[in-house]
Amino acid sequence: MSESVGFIGLGEMGGPMSRRLQQAGYTVTGFDVDPGRMAHVEAAASPADAAKRADRVVISIVRTLQQTEIVLFGGSGISAAGRDDIDVVIMSTIDPGSMERIAHRAHFPVLDAPVSGGVLGAEAGTLTIMVAGAAEAVTRIRPVLEAMGEKILVVGDHPGPGQAIKLANQLSLAVSVIGTLEALKLAKQAGVAPEEVLKVLAVSTGSSWPILNYETVRGWWELEDPDVGALGIILKDLGSIEKMGSESRLDLPAAELALERLRNAWADAGL
Amino acid sequence: MSESVGFIGLGEMGGPMSRRLQQAGYTVTGFDVDPGRMAHVEAAASPADAAKRADRVVISIVRTLQQTEIVLFGGSGISAAGRDDIDVVIMSTIDPGSMERIAHRAHFPVLDAPVSGGVLGAEAGTLTIMVAGAAEAVTRIRPVLEAMGEKILVVGDHPGPGQAIKLANQLSLAVSVIGTLEALKLAKQAGVAPEEVLKVLAVSTGSSWPILNYETVRGWWELEDPDVGALGIILKDLGSIEKMGSESRLDLPAAELALERLRNAWADAGL
Repeated sequence: MSESVGFIGLGEMGGPMSRRLQQAGYTVTGFDVDPGRMAHVEAAASPADAAKRADRVVISIVRTLQQTEIVLFGGSGISAAGRDDIDVVIMSTIDPGSMERIAHRAHFPVLDAPVSGGVLGAEAGTLTIMVAGAAEAVTRIRPVLEAMGEKILVVGDHPGPGQAIKLANQLSLAVSVIGTLEALKLAKQAGVAPEEVLKVLAVSTGSSWPILNYETVRGWWELEDPDVGALGIILKDLGSIEKMGSESRLDLPAAELALERLRNAWADAGL
Repeated sequence: MSESVGFIGLGEMGGPMSRRLQQAGYTVTGFDVDPGRMAHVEAAASPADAAKRADRVVISIVRTLQQTEIVLFGGSGISAAGRDDIDVVIMSTIDPGSMERIAHRAHFPVLDAPVSGGVLGAEAGTLTIMVAGAAEAVTRIRPVLEAMGEKILVVGDHPGPGQAIKLANQLSLAVSVIGTLEALKLAKQAGVAPEEVLKVLAVSTGSSWPILNYETVRGWWELEDPDVGALGIILKDLGSIEKMGSESRLDLPAAELALERLRNAWADAGL
């Protein structure tokens, strides 16, 4: 019989990621608050139920910190399964401080494994996964991660650093998008169309992942008519960055500028 | 006999670019204010002299707008050669408005052909060249550009757009460097070393040309001990962006932030 993996959160990312697990031969025992999202998995009644029925690995990839805490410690959360022989892998993007607190509170091993690559990377199984946790736990969960990601990078021996690097990635991404939007505005003023600029920048020193993947992520660029899902995620992550910055008294003016710009786009779109 | 190309400005970029022309079989009739830089070319006495002795194409790649104006219109500038059968190619980065004014004032065809790729690209002949000018003039100079660059992108049918796109590139580049520096600061606060973060970002959505070319451009990153040449160039270009923004009343907060950050680094280094 194939190994059963518990999987909490079958949304935009979790949906395709759980399908990759199935394609690799795992049984997915999944839970989502939206029953319609559980059609392709062995449906669990709760996170606790998924944790009870999992062989060893339980993944959580819900949207927010609050949801993550409910999944782990709520009345029917993973903790309520009463097991200490499971590895719980947090693949949501939260902040490193919260990640450490969660790991400290849990009575089972918790790992940090946020991802980069978006929905397309999830569908194609080409995600970059930045995993942090005790070495033996990383070894145990690695085959499961390899079914979902192309690059599995071990970034620390305790939970937290994965989140820190993921937030760093989101900061770098958001600021470079803001900069490129401003570059397009500058060139437009001189009569050069955005498509023309992006074509040149793609083969120049001003290039970046969002420029090279413009067609697949154009929703991020068109702030007049934004891709609500993508914009919502980056706003949430910029919020975590702001929180982390203010907790550690770090001055992060570029992140603040990006947050302000994207919040305005969100408000302008009436969201 | 091989075609003679006039070449004004044999510095950090012009030096290796003129060598690429020689390797492609051109004779370079060059001028630089520093005589030591003319050792590898047929030395001219002035820009006017280089323009007189050139067969058709004259390149100018000096540092600033002011120097460009002297090269073209000074007492011993290209104009003083009295020829209207030359194509003058401005490969320096200036601003699009000044580029248009220069072309308007000249009595010979002027083309816009700024480059991206830095000193290493110049040495390897792998520059991206964004050329703008009358179609027939672009056709005439194309073989010369192809000896210096890998990607020759025609971006307009009159001078100006090349500069606009180049400044857009510099804006995108400078802002993404600033964002990534901030990302490194954030991760460092959580105990993750910069090298670790850059390794992950290189294969994630926060990636960019400067991250992927970190080893060759690390001088840009170490603002405590900056690469004076590289920092000076980006500061000059951000100054042109600021000028263009204020002339056209464009709000460019990300460019302003980058300029402020890099000016502070310049001042802190005692430059």
